[in-house]
Amino acid sequence: MAAPQELLTDEEEVLTANRTFYVALHSLDLSLMSQLWLHEDWVKCLHPGWDLLVGWDEVRRSWQEIFHSTEQMLVSISRPLVHVTGDVAWISCLENITTAYQNSFSSAMVEATNIFQRRQGRWLMVHHHTTPLAQPPPEASASVQ
Amino acid sequence: MAAPQELLTDEEEVLTANRTFYVALHSLDLSLMSQLWLHEDWVKCLHPGWDLLVGWDEVRRSWQEIFHSTEQMLVSISRPLVHVTGDVAWISCLENITTAYQNSFSSAMVEATNIFQRRQGRWLMVHHHTTPLAQPPPEASASVQ
Repeated sequence: MAAPQELLTDEEEVLTANRTFYVALHSLDLSLMSQLWLHEDWVKCLHPGWDLLVGWDEVRRSWQEIFHSTEQMLVSISRPLVHVTGDVAWISCLENITTAYQNSFSSAMVEATNIFQRRQGRWLMVHHHTTPLAQPPPEASASVQ
Repeated sequence: MAAPQELLTDEEEVLTANRTFYVALHSLDLSLMSQLWLHEDWVKCLHPGWDLLVGWDEVRRSWQEIFHSTEQMLVSISRPLVHVTGDVAWISCLENITTAYQNSFSSAMVEATNIFQRRQGRWLMVHHHTTPLAQPPPEASASVQ
């Protein structure tokens, strides 16, 4: 039986929110992605190869576009490093992404900074910044954590 | 005469700390850079083309190495977007960097996320995440803000 929610530390709660983000990404699930983000006009997102997006409307449209043009996305993350200060938390993690489009695949190792803010007891994403890395670091694992 | 420090808003204080970071970068000033960072083992830095660095010791060594191998660095930033929540704040800004090494120059437009934490009334950098952009966005200005 899973531990009750109230026994989780702040760090564990943020790691859970971070895992949910990658489940939404992996599942191409816009509804789950929408539930995870704070819907305000100052949240920000930098997808690999994109310019910075500002505000939930722009961020939502980008996920819609990405999920619409993607057939399948395999995402695993490794070495999530979490830091919590009051009602703000951020995670640094490595994303290992393989994406299937029509008749083609692409793979990328990406360094991500994900910032979360606690609102009414829920950790919501407010910032997602990604950097494609030139080569996968040798210590990166392929397992979802 | 400059306005007294106590009249600055939190946002203005964070923007000032952010400007100081770029003055340290532009001036290759390790002492100023050191004063600006929180010296703890969880602070993080992702330089363009590097892997993630964790902890002030690693971050400090990286600045020392960068400043040692650089003859001159011209840095201007544009469209700083600041968000403050309690004692944590973050800025998204575009960095326009031209670097001189021995007999060569390189230019890069970089999207940065800089996270600051307030300690004893001072905003200290705890996270610096950079992404080199493929092409300069047309709206980027060349002025330091």
